[in-house]
Amino acid sequence: MKENLRIPRRHFLVGAAGTAYAGALLGTGTGAAFAQDGDLPDYVAWKEPGAFIQHSANTLETMRGEIGSVVTPNDLLFVRNNLPSLTEEEAGEADAWEVSVEGVAEPRALTVAELKAMDIEQVASVLQCSGNGRGFFEHETSGSQWLTGAAGNVIWTGVPVASVVEALGGAVDGAQWMTGTGGENIPDGIDPLTVMVERSVPIASHQQAILAWELNGEPLPLAHGGPLRLVVPGYYGVNNIKHIKRLAFTEEESQANIQQSGYRVREVGESGAPDQPSMFDMSVKSWVTHPLMDASTGRVLISGVALGGTETLERIEVSTDGGASWSEARFTGPDLGPFAWRSFVIAADLSPGTHRIASRATTVSGATQPEEFSANHRGYGHNGWSDHGVDVTVS
Amino acid sequence: MKENLRIPRRHFLVGAAGTAYAGALLGTGTGAAFAQDGDLPDYVAWKEPGAFIQHSANTLETMRGEIGSVVTPNDLLFVRNNLPSLTEEEAGEADAWEVSVEGVAEPRALTVAELKAMDIEQVASVLQCSGNGRGFFEHETSGSQWLTGAAGNVIWTGVPVASVVEALGGAVDGAQWMTGTGGENIPDGIDPLTVMVERSVPIASHQQAILAWELNGEPLPLAHGGPLRLVVPGYYGVNNIKHIKRLAFTEEESQANIQQSGYRVREVGESGAPDQPSMFDMSVKSWVTHPLMDASTGRVLISGVALGGTETLERIEVSTDGGASWSEARFTGPDLGPFAWRSFVIAADLSPGTHRIASRATTVSGATQPEEFSANHRGYGHNGWSDHGVDVTVS
Repeated sequence: MKENLRIPRRHFLVGAAGTAYAGALLGTGTGAAFAQDGDLPDYVAWKEPGAFIQHSANTLETMRGEIGSVVTPNDLLFVRNNLPSLTEEEAGEADAWEVSVEGVAEPRALTVAELKAMDIEQVASVLQCSGNGRGFFEHETSGSQWLTGAAGNVIWTGVPVASVVEALGGAVDGAQWMTGTGGENIPDGIDPLTVMVERSVPIASHQQAILAWELNGEPLPLAHGGPLRLVVPGYYGVNNIKHIKRLAFTEEESQANIQQSGYRVREVGESGAPDQPSMFDMSVKSWVTHPLMDASTGRVLISGVALGGTETLERIEVSTDGGASWSEARFTGPDLGPFAWRSFVIAADLSPGTHRIASRATTVSGATQPEEFSANHRGYGHNGWSDHGVDVTVS
Repeated sequence: MKENLRIPRRHFLVGAAGTAYAGALLGTGTGAAFAQDGDLPDYVAWKEPGAFIQHSANTLETMRGEIGSVVTPNDLLFVRNNLPSLTEEEAGEADAWEVSVEGVAEPRALTVAELKAMDIEQVASVLQCSGNGRGFFEHETSGSQWLTGAAGNVIWTGVPVASVVEALGGAVDGAQWMTGTGGENIPDGIDPLTVMVERSVPIASHQQAILAWELNGEPLPLAHGGPLRLVVPGYYGVNNIKHIKRLAFTEEESQANIQQSGYRVREVGESGAPDQPSMFDMSVKSWVTHPLMDASTGRVLISGVALGGTETLERIEVSTDGGASWSEARFTGPDLGPFAWRSFVIAADLSPGTHRIASRATTVSGATQPEEFSANHRGYGHNGWSDHGVDVTVS
């Protein structure tokens, strides 16, 4: 079964057209023609052409070879929207955007301009879709078949949620959840609960959260949730509510489908339900971003990225023999904190032939990537090191 | 004399046209029309329109209000070229660019592709022109009248120079300097030494230096020295050789004018000479980026950036009364290391009226910004906190 997905991909390597497709998928440059076949949708037309695999108008995956840097530039950051992004007309002037803060002693609506005068913080965090890696699972899954590219490492600027809560007199007694509601348009004739983007996260996470208006030093683009987005560092993308219009401290979780049954981890074939684990904080994970297909000399510089979810990384190891043996790689570049990813590199002398290159990250608490990751119905949270490996041919 | 420069600028605040000019200079948004009057030159047409003060085709200053973030996006980064930037045709394919490494046991030319396979590192560092702040000096100076915006904080990706040196057998005995030569075109009929960009820095600095091909995760733009630039973290911009074609470990400093007499700190009226201090490592410095002109309520969030040159910062203080009293502000965001700047913020309750807001940074070794900075002939290295202050009117 494991080969179901791999065999077709290997077939793509045979023949010129196939090589182009595989190149596009991997971002090795050989497949630029393929990636440029489809123009990017208008709302993300400012993104780097040729850097994405376009799964749908609302889902753009960054090619694996494009995401090796410490901070992911805005124009290379993946896109995944549960509902269509707001238009500029719908969003209006950024500073006038309002968020209603509820479940505090003095509830009120605050504009972005008011938030900007309240407090300011920057936080670096990995933004990753819950389904990143879904394409590596053997079983049939609905949803975008992301490989590694539904993830990026970015720096957000905004106001700490804790400062907002303090300014409004603190959260009400009994509040267990921080619930954010997105400002997307809900289509007419549909029960809002079935499609609205409203998520609740454990209230403790509000201590790290910010309401962000800037992404990597630029005004937060609408495609990424502007004018204002809730950022819960270390938590999967869906919890980082775009175009946030309501932030509430609540006793109960949201009744929206996306909370009650969506983003729940369960056995293949089961339906989603509130008693199953929700996709909150991210797991430790890593992947190689270079090389991805072949290398022309025996000495190869192997590089990639690793994240600890909400924990600091302790170690990153690389194997060039499919996991039979491991060597410790070196983290490079600045350490942007526990919620960010780190780049890593190791040099290897590879003999001619095909090598299975894999990476395995471990956090300070000892959490480490498993070799295999158990299947789950929706294909969430894959961090198994084996599937994330790449076959590199040295000639 | 101190008022010579300030008075005209205050005059700009009187009347609608003047306000627009001052707004453009400060980046407060009110002067967008002015800034957009002049289109950016073709080679930097990809930069953010309206974010720059254009001193000349080769010198673009980032407006003060635009540089408050931890990492400066490429399209907001200032531009300063001693010679016109290379065209794409002149530069050729990036990976094929060659740098000749000399003054090592096994000298040879290396392509960018070869460097990429040798080793990799990322480093965050402030890029700052030696003349940043020149516009604050009282005396007449030649050169761009930069205020605060000939500086940015960026993340470079490249190969450590130390790894290159090691791979080539080490530097030759007696080498005292690391000398980089830019690949710019030298106009015909001119003695190359008078215009070429060739700088020598003390050899010890090569331990931190990298040969960089990426700026903030994107291929290094030609306007910023692509395909390959020598980055000497913590050193003023001129030492970071663009389009580098030669990297040599030498016994003597470069004979180029830019080294022998240029970028030398001396008394006003003196000529440059090799026995004067050269603009190598940067001094501790900070400036407020918000607010810059006025605030509409009594409570104001004061933010800015601070750098320690080659040293870690210990403290950042803010005064709202022209330096009569100081309060410690809070650093925000990730710490990108000793060569990077940090963002800071402090809240202040200001009474109606005009307040002189200033900031003062101090490093772990106790180096701190002076109140006044002594004049020097070319107006280099201004880090005095008084001149960098801003008058903010609260109504």
